[in-house]
Amino acid sequence: MKGRNTVGLLETTTAQIVPQDASWRTTARGRLEQLTMPYWALGRLMDLAEDLAGITRSMQPPVTRRVIVTMASDHGVAAEGVSQYPQEVTAQMVHNFAQGGAGINALAQVGRARLVVVDMGVLGDLSPLVRAGKILSRRMGPGTRNIAHGPAMEREEAVRCLEAGIMIAQELGPSVDLFGTGDMGIGNTTPSSAIAAVFSGRPAIEVTGRGTGIDEARLGWKSSIVQQALDLNRPDPADGLDVLAKVGGFEIGGIAGLILGAAAQRKPVIVDGFISTAGALIAHALAPGAADYMIAAHRSAERGHRLMLDYLGKHPLLDLDLRLGEGTGAALAMPLIEAAARLLSEVSTFAEAAVSEAAP
Amino acid sequence: MKGRNTVGLLETTTAQIVPQDASWRTTARGRLEQLTMPYWALGRLMDLAEDLAGITRSMQPPVTRRVIVTMASDHGVAAEGVSQYPQEVTAQMVHNFAQGGAGINALAQVGRARLVVVDMGVLGDLSPLVRAGKILSRRMGPGTRNIAHGPAMEREEAVRCLEAGIMIAQELGPSVDLFGTGDMGIGNTTPSSAIAAVFSGRPAIEVTGRGTGIDEARLGWKSSIVQQALDLNRPDPADGLDVLAKVGGFEIGGIAGLILGAAAQRKPVIVDGFISTAGALIAHALAPGAADYMIAAHRSAERGHRLMLDYLGKHPLLDLDLRLGEGTGAALAMPLIEAAARLLSEVSTFAEAAVSEAAP
Repeated sequence: MKGRNTVGLLETTTAQIVPQDASWRTTARGRLEQLTMPYWALGRLMDLAEDLAGITRSMQPPVTRRVIVTMASDHGVAAEGVSQYPQEVTAQMVHNFAQGGAGINALAQVGRARLVVVDMGVLGDLSPLVRAGKILSRRMGPGTRNIAHGPAMEREEAVRCLEAGIMIAQELGPSVDLFGTGDMGIGNTTPSSAIAAVFSGRPAIEVTGRGTGIDEARLGWKSSIVQQALDLNRPDPADGLDVLAKVGGFEIGGIAGLILGAAAQRKPVIVDGFISTAGALIAHALAPGAADYMIAAHRSAERGHRLMLDYLGKHPLLDLDLRLGEGTGAALAMPLIEAAARLLSEVSTFAEAAVSEAAP
Repeated sequence: MKGRNTVGLLETTTAQIVPQDASWRTTARGRLEQLTMPYWALGRLMDLAEDLAGITRSMQPPVTRRVIVTMASDHGVAAEGVSQYPQEVTAQMVHNFAQGGAGINALAQVGRARLVVVDMGVLGDLSPLVRAGKILSRRMGPGTRNIAHGPAMEREEAVRCLEAGIMIAQELGPSVDLFGTGDMGIGNTTPSSAIAAVFSGRPAIEVTGRGTGIDEARLGWKSSIVQQALDLNRPDPADGLDVLAKVGGFEIGGIAGLILGAAAQRKPVIVDGFISTAGALIAHALAPGAADYMIAAHRSAERGHRLMLDYLGKHPLLDLDLRLGEGTGAALAMPLIEAAARLLSEVSTFAEAAVSEAAP
């Protein structure tokens, strides 16, 4: 991003975000109620179809061209032993993404989505992958600082990683109808738990979970680190930038930016799991209207996710005990988005199909 | 089916059904535990991958060639006013399927599945659709008899509709990896509720739901009709044929047969919603091992479905307040089956991708 003039991009973008269009929602509901099936018989898919009409201002919501943007970064707090995996795994998994061997590579195929992997600040040299065109680089540095000892990043860095996400959404925008978020970063459930605690107002112990699968003892330790980061940094829940800078992460900022960029384009964005929802909370704090463009993919097995979704007023589509991240939940939700769009544009009404309606 | 020698097909088929292969399950689990992700981090998809290996005896479970078989039939009990739709809607909806305007037409696209519609006994003349190659005819007659006044069909007819389903599975088998069930039939939640009551041992009032959306008063009436059918016919839960004949339906028998046919071929079959699960209960009563080949698509909004799934030991993949039938839930589950198969065949292990494992 060096040399590009990004002054004001964050403010410009958040100012462009307006709510869903109520009249398109009403028009969609009118048609959905007349489809050749009992009233609202496809339940949540019909709610989603109404959302898609309100988001895209269309009765044929385009959702064919799909991308999952998986943001990777490292975290200084990994030094506290909050994960059971060594920090080098972040870079190793980015190589795995580039080679097509990870969970998200398989599931992006199911979602018929292109996968875009972004280095937001991974420890280690990923430049060969960048030169080979396998990943994008929007590096902020070799990981954040340790939130147990001070802020994750400067406020100016928080702006920059949000703007990196916004610009990726802008660059992809002309060829994308439907965005999905994803993350990779050893230790990143720790800042995500801190973000959940800040916005929900709950203590760390209620929102901190097992991440990659730590045991009870390490969970207690991790929760104490989250609480220490909150007590030390005192992030202000009324100031999304402050929360991101003090207890966030580069990939979390990138995800938040991607969501803002999608919302500004009036395109739906599927929010993956626990870490992506932390990004969604930052996006919501900066522009509450962005929530109108978010679709919650699934309820993560990670403790705290439910509280975060409730805070955003989102009911997730899937509940499959997933806790991987990478964008895997977003990819799995994509066929359901397609289903909702097809309901609106392809299914006949009672009148069109000459089917008798219910007795009054 | 006239003129075809089907003597013994039901017995032959049920005798071919053997449990999932435990050694393939073990091999699959061994690999899934080594995939480049935290232990079992894709939760229910990994359970499903293990099932697919046990079902297909393969580490590359084939699931690409898919069909939804939607069985349509009418029900004498509709005369009791148990539905809010007139009986003519069954035939009208079959026309709608043939014209591509129904919910299942849109959602079969999402599931990348071919749709096969079968007339098992619809009131009205559908022969133009049969001649046009739009639907298959396996007509048992113009609907069942009224279960509130006697058995739905003769025992011999129950055998015939099961065998019709088995033969469809056999005919489609060479070009199909993954089956899905579906139903259409005004009034068919009433026999399905009766079947649920028989096997669960619960009174009608606990398993009878609103179907297409009847009000409280009509729900009470419908429940009393279900109870009357049970009290009058006294179906024997130890005898699946007796249950089908006394309180079933032609499409329910066809669905049960399709499931048995798929299980005999060792192929996965996705069980759609409430009516399809009634068919699954009949199939299970005739060959308990068939349950090993069933995948429950979703939890229907219809009261009683949970009890039926619990009886079969099935945990559904989706919970989206669907209550349409037609195979729509099965179609929506197909991408999840694809995801599970891709996990097993496409994702690298830690060793293959040179990713560090968790600390012990």
